[in-house]
Amino acid sequence: MVECPPFSANFKVRVSTKTRAEPSLVVTQGDPDGIGPELLLRLGDLGALTGGDRVVADGARLEALARALATPWATRGFDAVRSLLVDVPGGQVAALARGVDLVLEDPADRALVTAPIDKARCRAEGFTFPGHTEYLAARAGVDDFAMLMVGPRLRVVPVTIHVPLRAVPDLLTSAAIVRAGRLLGHALHHHFGVAAPRVGVLGLNPHAGERGMLGDEEGRVIAPAVAALREWAADADLPCEFVGPLAADSAFATHAGGGLDGLLAMYHDQGLGPFKLLHMRDGVNMTLGLPFVRTSPDHGTARDIAGRGVADPSSMLAAVALARGHRP
Amino acid sequence: MVECPPFSANFKVRVSTKTRAEPSLVVTQGDPDGIGPELLLRLGDLGALTGGDRVVADGARLEALARALATPWATRGFDAVRSLLVDVPGGQVAALARGVDLVLEDPADRALVTAPIDKARCRAEGFTFPGHTEYLAARAGVDDFAMLMVGPRLRVVPVTIHVPLRAVPDLLTSAAIVRAGRLLGHALHHHFGVAAPRVGVLGLNPHAGERGMLGDEEGRVIAPAVAALREWAADADLPCEFVGPLAADSAFATHAGGGLDGLLAMYHDQGLGPFKLLHMRDGVNMTLGLPFVRTSPDHGTARDIAGRGVADPSSMLAAVALARGHRP
Repeated sequence: MVECPPFSANFKVRVSTKTRAEPSLVVTQGDPDGIGPELLLRLGDLGALTGGDRVVADGARLEALARALATPWATRGFDAVRSLLVDVPGGQVAALARGVDLVLEDPADRALVTAPIDKARCRAEGFTFPGHTEYLAARAGVDDFAMLMVGPRLRVVPVTIHVPLRAVPDLLTSAAIVRAGRLLGHALHHHFGVAAPRVGVLGLNPHAGERGMLGDEEGRVIAPAVAALREWAADADLPCEFVGPLAADSAFATHAGGGLDGLLAMYHDQGLGPFKLLHMRDGVNMTLGLPFVRTSPDHGTARDIAGRGVADPSSMLAAVALARGHRP
Repeated sequence: MVECPPFSANFKVRVSTKTRAEPSLVVTQGDPDGIGPELLLRLGDLGALTGGDRVVADGARLEALARALATPWATRGFDAVRSLLVDVPGGQVAALARGVDLVLEDPADRALVTAPIDKARCRAEGFTFPGHTEYLAARAGVDDFAMLMVGPRLRVVPVTIHVPLRAVPDLLTSAAIVRAGRLLGHALHHHFGVAAPRVGVLGLNPHAGERGMLGDEEGRVIAPAVAALREWAADADLPCEFVGPLAADSAFATHAGGGLDGLLAMYHDQGLGPFKLLHMRDGVNMTLGLPFVRTSPDHGTARDIAGRGVADPSSMLAAVALARGHRP
């Protein structure tokens, strides 16, 4: 018997929004020395933001960046963003905190899009969380959350994330798999509009353990979780099918070919290696389990190219579109 | 200081063959209840085999299969294969052993292509090796070998292979990485004709350990191996560059985009998940370090579809082409 907390009521709130008007967006600047600020200018220039949206950034720095770039798109971008600006001088943590304040004022009708933060610098600013996701969960008061990587061909949730590989087998519990699987099945049906989602659950070991010859976690931990997910779907009246444990080396091709609607990966690289191979440019990170929609581009701060106006806005644009409710 | 055995002289022998005539092939049937036999008929029908090649199979069963399929291609295929047949009635292990005998008679001018075996059934036939690769290494008397996955866009060697994920961190040694890296660098230059190969060495942990915050193997095990590989390349006068440890979630896109010529993955799913996502149909498994070229298709016995004539021969054809010396 796999014991889990009750399925998050917070998340269920989101279901209703899909029939509402598009949410307004709150976009945070992220690391001011990364590519986040110039991506805000790109969003403005490309018409991706509307009058109800808010851009939380250091206004003086953003204006200085637009001047320094000295290109028509940057000028047009700043003009578009200026009227949406919530000016938060200083660091990225203050802007993020303010952005979350704004979204939490009306979580059902506002969605959060976050530009990348620099984790080391965040810690220097007093930030004690491993990343955005954990901070947002704490602010929203939810324990039951997951990171969904979304691209046009793959949707992947890693069950364990930013931990050493050595720690994965002992951290991987049936309960953790069930929690992530519920969020994924629910999101596929309600957010992505898949009538009867088919979710693949990967094995931990090569060839999903090859009938116990290459590890026992498939039988001991993962198969019971798949059984519990099936029971949950039946009880919750969610027409979602869970299959697995699947061999990780073939399941991604099955998924990309349309044979699955989403995958639960057991650890970071198992999921993100294949995901980023296909979706390096257009991947979006979406947090499941929050009382509001939150997305972010699937890349880092890219300080090495920041401030030159060469950053590719594709992933940020995809994050904005997904937060707005447009499915890839 | 990373201690390794001297680089295999056996493998160096292969270098000279690339200027010789194309090798003749020895093709083994694999599991007689899998798709191997019908793939042999496909090879025959498609003109992939020449007069100097040998097909090691149970002739009576192959003929019966061609009759049962009762299609023009199967009939043509058997007609083409008949004259090349080395008849070995009975199991897959006997056919494999005979195939290796034939290749070892003239390892510089013969190459081995193996259809998939069923490992459980092989054990029942008295086979004590984990798979083809280990058996071939034992037959050839080499300790220093590796499995290279080859496709048109990716070339990947996993350093550890068929072991439980839990065992990977302790099995991963600098020496094992160096051994695999030497074989990959050498093969890229000499077999694949890359003038100055650039080989990426992946990290073990998410984000390659994120500067030690997510694991210490990158600094303790992998970085010393990369340094040793650079020294080896300089000493061996091989114009091969080794870079890493790299974050596994972005390195595959870099490689597929042409920024790297090959990758060393630290474990099975890290390498084969992305590989099979791109190359499920056309991937080839090539053994490095043997005194002869050996390739096999990158799929299993597929007993569930065997005998119906529906198996896709793409990977087997790619294995034949690569063994023949044609690069993807």
